[in-house]
Amino acid sequence: MKIIKCLVLLLCVCSLPAFASEAATNTANIQEIRLSLDSVWVVIGGILVFLMQAGFAMVESGSVRSKNTVNVLMKNYMDACLGGLVFWLVGFGLMFGMNTSGWIGTSHFAPDNMDGWHWNLLFFQMMFAATATTIASGAMAERIHFVAYIVVAAVVSGLIYPVFGSWAWGSIFEGTGWLKALGFIDFAGSTVVHSIGGWVALAGIIVLGPRLGRFGRNGQSHFLAGHNLPLVALGGFILWFAWFGFNAASTVNANVSIGRIALNTHLAACAAAVAYMLYALVRGKAILMKTTINASLGGLVGITAGCATMSPLFAVITGAIAGLLVSTLPVLMEKLKLDDVVDAVTVHGFCGAWGTVAAGLFFEADMFNSQIVSIQVLGVLAAFAWGFGIALITFKVLKKMLGSLRVGTQHEQRGLDYTEHAELSYPEFQRDVTFETDDITRRH
Amino acid sequence: MKIIKCLVLLLCVCSLPAFASEAATNTANIQEIRLSLDSVWVVIGGILVFLMQAGFAMVESGSVRSKNTVNVLMKNYMDACLGGLVFWLVGFGLMFGMNTSGWIGTSHFAPDNMDGWHWNLLFFQMMFAATATTIASGAMAERIHFVAYIVVAAVVSGLIYPVFGSWAWGSIFEGTGWLKALGFIDFAGSTVVHSIGGWVALAGIIVLGPRLGRFGRNGQSHFLAGHNLPLVALGGFILWFAWFGFNAASTVNANVSIGRIALNTHLAACAAAVAYMLYALVRGKAILMKTTINASLGGLVGITAGCATMSPLFAVITGAIAGLLVSTLPVLMEKLKLDDVVDAVTVHGFCGAWGTVAAGLFFEADMFNSQIVSIQVLGVLAAFAWGFGIALITFKVLKKMLGSLRVGTQHEQRGLDYTEHAELSYPEFQRDVTFETDDITRRH
Amino acid sequence: MKIIKCLVLLLCVCSLPAFASEAATNTANIQEIRLSLDSVWVVIGGILVFLMQAGFAMVESGSVRSKNTVNVLMKNYMDACLGGLVFWLVGFGLMFGMNTSGWIGTSHFAPDNMDGWHWNLLFFQMMFAATATTIASGAMAERIHFVAYIVVAAVVSGLIYPVFGSWAWGSIFEGTGWLKALGFIDFAGSTVVHSIGGWVALAGIIVLGPRLGRFGRNGQSHFLAGHNLPLVALGGFILWFAWFGFNAASTVNANVSIGRIALNTHLAACAAAVAYMLYALVRGKAILMKTTINASLGGLVGITAGCATMSPLFAVITGAIAGLLVSTLPVLMEKLKLDDVVDAVTVHGFCGAWGTVAAGLFFEADMFNSQIVSIQVLGVLAAFAWGFGIALITFKVLKKMLGSLRVGTQHEQRGLDYTEHAELSYPEFQRDVTFETDDITRRH
Repeated sequence: MKIIKCLVLLLCVCSLPAFASEAATNTANIQEIRLSLDSVWVVIGGILVFLMQAGFAMVESGSVRSKNTVNVLMKNYMDACLGGLVFWLVGFGLMFGMNTSGWIGTSHFAPDNMDGWHWNLLFFQMMFAATATTIASGAMAERIHFVAYIVVAAVVSGLIYPVFGSWAWGSIFEGTGWLKALGFIDFAGSTVVHSIGGWVALAGIIVLGPRLGRFGRNGQSHFLAGHNLPLVALGGFILWFAWFGFNAASTVNANVSIGRIALNTHLAACAAAVAYMLYALVRGKAILMKTTINASLGGLVGITAGCATMSPLFAVITGAIAGLLVSTLPVLMEKLKLDDVVDAVTVHGFCGAWGTVAAGLFFEADMFNSQIVSIQVLGVLAAFAWGFGIALITFKVLKKMLGSLRVGTQHEQRGLDYTEHAELSYPEFQRDVTFETDDITRRH
Repeated sequence: MKIIKCLVLLLCVCSLPAFASEAATNTANIQEIRLSLDSVWVVIGGILVFLMQAGFAMVESGSVRSKNTVNVLMKNYMDACLGGLVFWLVGFGLMFGMNTSGWIGTSHFAPDNMDGWHWNLLFFQMMFAATATTIASGAMAERIHFVAYIVVAAVVSGLIYPVFGSWAWGSIFEGTGWLKALGFIDFAGSTVVHSIGGWVALAGIIVLGPRLGRFGRNGQSHFLAGHNLPLVALGGFILWFAWFGFNAASTVNANVSIGRIALNTHLAACAAAVAYMLYALVRGKAILMKTTINASLGGLVGITAGCATMSPLFAVITGAIAGLLVSTLPVLMEKLKLDDVVDAVTVHGFCGAWGTVAAGLFFEADMFNSQIVSIQVLGVLAAFAWGFGIALITFKVLKKMLGSLRVGTQHEQRGLDYTEHAELSYPEFQRDVTFETDDITRRH
Repeated sequence: MKIIKCLVLLLCVCSLPAFASEAATNTANIQEIRLSLDSVWVVIGGILVFLMQAGFAMVESGSVRSKNTVNVLMKNYMDACLGGLVFWLVGFGLMFGMNTSGWIGTSHFAPDNMDGWHWNLLFFQMMFAATATTIASGAMAERIHFVAYIVVAAVVSGLIYPVFGSWAWGSIFEGTGWLKALGFIDFAGSTVVHSIGGWVALAGIIVLGPRLGRFGRNGQSHFLAGHNLPLVALGGFILWFAWFGFNAASTVNANVSIGRIALNTHLAACAAAVAYMLYALVRGKAILMKTTINASLGGLVGITAGCATMSPLFAVITGAIAGLLVSTLPVLMEKLKLDDVVDAVTVHGFCGAWGTVAAGLFFEADMFNSQIVSIQVLGVLAAFAWGFGIALITFKVLKKMLGSLRVGTQHEQRGLDYTEHAELSYPEFQRDVTFETDDITRRH
């Protein structure tokens, strides 16, 4: 009996380390899998957000006249390239580096040695910076100098975007941005990414002035039709597709909540386009494709701030109102003689502002709380003051330095593809091609 | 000795709760990770399936004449938008809600409060509904009224698709559809999604009649060439890409089987295109790009039902036969004076029917079992009866209500872009543009 | 007391199996989740890599004249289709089958019964084979016979690519390729995929000769402009997007390292385009879109070998040098009267070679080690000898057998779309369309 008891006790004692070790191994493996799964989700999100570059490029290149197509494509391509390097060099540090003051990050510039998880975050965030940067290119298309635009893109990637970002989202290392500390809600960046991009665009079109021929002598407005609407539609679909990564992966954590975020994103875009369609039907106007697509993009911008913290019904409402903004505001812009080629100020600036307020109004844990809403409004105003202000200064300084931000009148008439890049977008189809291909060859 | 024994016993007893708690924590974390991983897979699947909208839009817009391009793009864009809202409001409830009768779901309409996992499923399934809805737009292109089409799209999203879906796939809450109860195999929707879409298209082109000029007085057929074949190719690639999400994510569970599903999907598409190429070479005909792409899409539709339950060799056979269907059936449709602009009835209707039968014939657990095959045939016939029947009634009722489903003859000649949307797809390149751009501006 | 002790002991003993079983269940579930997560990552990677087909198709179709657009699209589409079947039938076995000699795989041909994980790998690797195969189509565009091209594509998918692959990456079953055994570093295929494709292209353009009109009588070169630059830009964006799957999923294991791989991939592409931009600015030349896009693609090719084993700073350097190669080498090719329509030899062949050397030079665990670098050089030379050699023999044998690899002069002048496929890419927009659409209809 005693021997048996001893043996049993021995068995218990001896098996303990095995159990302990198996459980500990399991715990470690679980942590490793959790980190791996989050990495997969964040990296896939970043990959999707990258594709927004293609979406913007298609929307913008289809919305300009064919003589300026290569130029706007190049602006989209190069702002992503230069912006990527600049964000790695300084933007990431300014935005997510240690932020003890609440106003700016001060570490992790040109990082070359971080742990795996922070590389994932840098990759993901770099694509957001690229998105904010490229928004302005469409608004200012068909007239701004290529090199001037590239300089502005570097300023947005390296200063305007990351500094505001440090207020609302910083830091991932130490310290908290002042807006974040107040409880500002901007889940995936209605304000941080889209409004900032929109206000930069607004400053740009004010300083640049409208395209030649956009407004007549007596103030009447002339519609300068985009040359390739299928490209615009393709760009719209691509942006919508990429937006799921933008919003749902902003959890930076793979969990069961991502489906509702994606669904809210989708419903808001649907509701915005349907709202515009009904608006046009009621007013007896033609249902334009370009406005339909812009409306859905406005819905996407609008839901970006609150997609994780409102229920589908309110996502539909947020989107529908964004769709109505897109249905109406561009007419006001036109009356102010502001020439925004793709209505970027409305779609990204104003819909981003509305969406940020909506994220407060429809915040599911505490709806229609005036304190929450006023912090949202404060964030919106801060974004306008900073984004529009610094951009305006940048454009004015650049104008001084370069003499002009715009290409010359003759170049604008001839088209920027030829004058800035010595390439034609469709050499076989364009009319009035008054030069020889060999003429271009010589400039290569 | 006794003290040691007591201490040992105490150690054992004391360490038990720690082990128990670590194991229990591990178990909970494992469940949470499993749910998160499945969420990631299903949401990524839904995101990929969304992109099918872009694929269809590109295939269809490239396959029509340039005067109807904006119109067909708008149909694709708006059916996704309206269909999304309608599926959320009623479709999801009809399809996946409690289904005690086996014939229809009766709960979860306009859901605003579900658990996380069901939001994931709703997001994923919404994209399938959008796919079924948009299939018909290409077949009926270049002649159907925009508003009439939009109403039909709402009926497909909100009635035709979800009710058949409730028979074959319902419910996820309680109860089982009658076809599902019989053991009907349609893994990702050869019948549920594609055939249903194809039969709606068939009803549409019968009621609408052919485009002006498609068939001559003496019955000879005139080929009305699509205006932009690169768009068609791009659309084909995008659809193929998105199809991997359609089929592989239909596991709604992330597991090791998804690679074979994706491989089967790919091989079937490859085999279908190669089968058409050999068919054309043997018959001494030109190898057409439009038929090549349609063949591969037919292969994709065909493998959709059985992609999870057959081995690659049979996926190749299934795809090759679908490719031969696409090589031959459109000629028969033409003889019947049915004008299907993108051969949607063949690609989605007939290849979907074939694929559903093939899923029974080549069901790896029990091949060539006549009982399984006859249930598959029953499902195919039920889909035809319901999908074609209700669509036919819908089109006839709409025709009565609106006077005509078609635009007027002059509008059809002029092109629907101008008459329905006041926009031109390529204002700089289109010939015979007999109106001023300002004329359009006034209608905006 | 004794009874208590006994009871306590009993409690310990009795609870042991429960703990053991819970821990064992956890261990099994963890293994299953790990396998599922890796499956998700590899399958998503394969899906992304598939989209490269669309990217190449868009870049190439936009870079040719409109009369050869359908033809080059068809080559891209069919090489993926035929190549998929061929790689399943023989390529996978040659590349990854048992490889006891180190020179070739000898098992797993036309696999129909493997475990789940190996299906995942087959799916992923099939897309890499398709990429290697399609690289050559652009270089040889506008003159090679469709059927001749398809035969070459089958040889690349079924022999050239998998045999070299077996040296560097084989086997996943048993045995090791000789290059792999030496420690050759080519993480995702700068050499295995891209250089091999580039050298096949080089052999092709040497045997084929230049397009009619590409070089004048006195040796001067004429630039034959691509007809649709927005397609080229879209293709560039799509390739870049897909490349994240190509490189990051080459871990074939989901872990925290994937973010740095994706980031390196991105920074290299950015740096390459910026390097070209600066090069053009310094030389006072126009900044061409086609070269900008090719530069970024060269950066992507270059970083592919070393993306997992260098830090971001060196990724930037690797990319920048690749960008300078793309800025300069095409001029040399032109001087040698080699007509490479899309500069595939430079972008894939030379940048792939450079990237493979860079992966040795900047190998973070042991930088600038001459032994590592010399093995890298050996691999680069072996790829050239095998890829260029076998391709040259194939082209010469095919030329003998078919009489000519090229279409006739009149067909080349007329355009391959009409003569080989009886289709026009843009029937409404192309000038000098000297035949009736009905003429085409008859050939269908």
